[in-house]
Amino acid sequence: MTRPLDAMRLNNITTPAAIVDVRKMRANIRRMQQRMDLLGVKFRPHVKTAKCVEIVREQLAAGAQGITVSTLKEAEAFFKEGVRDILYAVEVAPAKLAKALELRRKGCDLKLLVDNPASAKMVARFAAGHEHAFEVWIEIDTDGHRAGVQPGDTVLIEIARALQTEWTRLGGVLAHAGSSYEANSPQALQEIAERERAGCVAAAQAIRNAGIACAAVSVGSTPTALSAPALPGVTEVRAGVYVFFDLVMANTGVCTLDDIALSVLSTVIGHRIDKGWILVDAGWMAMSRDRGTQQQAVDYGYGRVCDLDGRPLDGLMMTQVNQEHGIICDTSAQRDDVGIRFPIGSQVRILPNHACATATQFDRYELVDGGECIATWSRFRGW
Amino acid sequence: MTRPLDAMRLNNITTPAAIVDVRKMRANIRRMQQRMDLLGVKFRPHVKTAKCVEIVREQLAAGAQGITVSTLKEAEAFFKEGVRDILYAVEVAPAKLAKALELRRKGCDLKLLVDNPASAKMVARFAAGHEHAFEVWIEIDTDGHRAGVQPGDTVLIEIARALQTEWTRLGGVLAHAGSSYEANSPQALQEIAERERAGCVAAAQAIRNAGIACAAVSVGSTPTALSAPALPGVTEVRAGVYVFFDLVMANTGVCTLDDIALSVLSTVIGHRIDKGWILVDAGWMAMSRDRGTQQQAVDYGYGRVCDLDGRPLDGLMMTQVNQEHGIICDTSAQRDDVGIRFPIGSQVRILPNHACATATQFDRYELVDGGECIATWSRFRGW
Repeated sequence: MTRPLDAMRLNNITTPAAIVDVRKMRANIRRMQQRMDLLGVKFRPHVKTAKCVEIVREQLAAGAQGITVSTLKEAEAFFKEGVRDILYAVEVAPAKLAKALELRRKGCDLKLLVDNPASAKMVARFAAGHEHAFEVWIEIDTDGHRAGVQPGDTVLIEIARALQTEWTRLGGVLAHAGSSYEANSPQALQEIAERERAGCVAAAQAIRNAGIACAAVSVGSTPTALSAPALPGVTEVRAGVYVFFDLVMANTGVCTLDDIALSVLSTVIGHRIDKGWILVDAGWMAMSRDRGTQQQAVDYGYGRVCDLDGRPLDGLMMTQVNQEHGIICDTSAQRDDVGIRFPIGSQVRILPNHACATATQFDRYELVDGGECIATWSRFRGW
Repeated sequence: MTRPLDAMRLNNITTPAAIVDVRKMRANIRRMQQRMDLLGVKFRPHVKTAKCVEIVREQLAAGAQGITVSTLKEAEAFFKEGVRDILYAVEVAPAKLAKALELRRKGCDLKLLVDNPASAKMVARFAAGHEHAFEVWIEIDTDGHRAGVQPGDTVLIEIARALQTEWTRLGGVLAHAGSSYEANSPQALQEIAERERAGCVAAAQAIRNAGIACAAVSVGSTPTALSAPALPGVTEVRAGVYVFFDLVMANTGVCTLDDIALSVLSTVIGHRIDKGWILVDAGWMAMSRDRGTQQQAVDYGYGRVCDLDGRPLDGLMMTQVNQEHGIICDTSAQRDDVGIRFPIGSQVRILPNHACATATQFDRYELVDGGECIATWSRFRGW
């Protein structure tokens, strides 16, 4: 990965740019994998955050088994790179079954997700029509957050039965405690993690009690994965944003600002000294419009501003954005000399609210190790 | 543009997809151009909204003269397509001058923007060092919104003088009344438009009074362009989002929901009948995280939901999003039967808060005319 001959410093990169601190990213990958190993569960990273082949390779090398994806495009891209065990963790739309079939026929062990009888029957009909076996999982709702069937709902068994056909089989149940993003204490996170675990295990048990096999019990979100004290009955955990972390995660307490591996490099293009403003060339097109910290303990605006080494600068926050303009507000006592401290052409790095949203604004990552760019990794997006 | 042989209906398109209603888009282009012709000013569309070659061609064919861009990548892409007169309307960062020089040397009449003496001197030094002539404009601040010099500020003349060198010349002044997005009455918009006009004309006059030529007086934002009753002293107007319009613009009153040419096609993947929720496969990855209507008269959540023909459906709004899940909430009296009215696999179209932000989440537009897809146009992004 290193390229010593043309190694370059950050100040040679065209801004705005997505910078990944490789040491921090690797520490995040190690930390999560070690925790999963300790809890005795398989780890299936959600690769929707980075959408990057090299990063998936690092996750698998660290011990991950299989991956989770949010689009069939991710499934295609990572299957091409040799990953077979892929869970598509969004309820499948009928029109997407043709692409899923194509992947499975090529040898991809793609698992689909449903949360209602109509979708289960639709997959079963499609599978029978094409005489190809499909593995389907059921989403369980443990916090009323989004999709899924409640563990005690009789419709759960109805779905499981609808999948008991010649060409379909139930692979497992899956829960995602999205509400964990709103918590901010270890105790609250442990409670959400336990509710996620207990609900998902109960759902699997209810299915098994009905005489239907349910091998996989999959839970996860970055905050619950890092908070669950034990995971009896769970076979695997999913988490995605941990690979970079972000300000939303820092607000939940599962990481510090120093753990955040992704930042946006930007260049100073102007000032409004009277307002204590520094204008930079990273607007919402670079940062995204995500304001995930707005309702949290610390509202970081559009991002926390750091120096070129990634150290947070006192009192500096990106408070407003336009498409290609970012306004950094200096609330420190030294605001009168922002023009001297941050002259035109100087650079800052901005930590994002939500790494998944910021990362997708870019087509590549600049990998940085000790202030030096050691590689460029491409990423993709789309459907 | 038509392709009758493989013309397809919307329900054959992989979702989520960015749909452009070609009749509405053309009506929007005509309306703005006719208004500019009536006001007797040159129209220089801001092409950052669509970033699409075919759409720029339609704007030029309608009468636009030159374009405005927000990145040098746009300048490169549209210069390649034959557009020479390009205004890069973001204060230039020193490191971007090399790319600007490359474009100018190829024959692109690229105009740069600055708003402070340091940047003006920096461009002058660069131009002299490379013995290549640069045309530079100065941004004027008429509403304290973002960047720019106030019309009466003596620093304005300092910047203009710094550009009077062998290799640089001042091309004009530019104002953008970003605050117009926050207004919602014809009177308020007319006042903002007049402040934008008067401030920009005053700045040009102050420069001319100092004995320095200032040919171009450029103003614009979609709401002010459509509201200004007259533009004495102004030579050209810029506007971008008018090409598609969006919910933020509808809230300002300069368009109706029916004028919005961009929508996101998505497929129903689940329901939560107890909550009146319809789950679709368009989350923030498709809609963007833009919540531009949050502070406006009508908060449209993440978007207003329409049927396949683009007609708004009573009581349906996208209230929550995750990366690939959108939650549409039915607040109508019929919420109990959302599962029957919107079965799994059925499709809806969602009008976006902010067309610039939603469009950039896609790599292409599906052009629709009377419910039929007549073409696919690609778009780009990045820097």
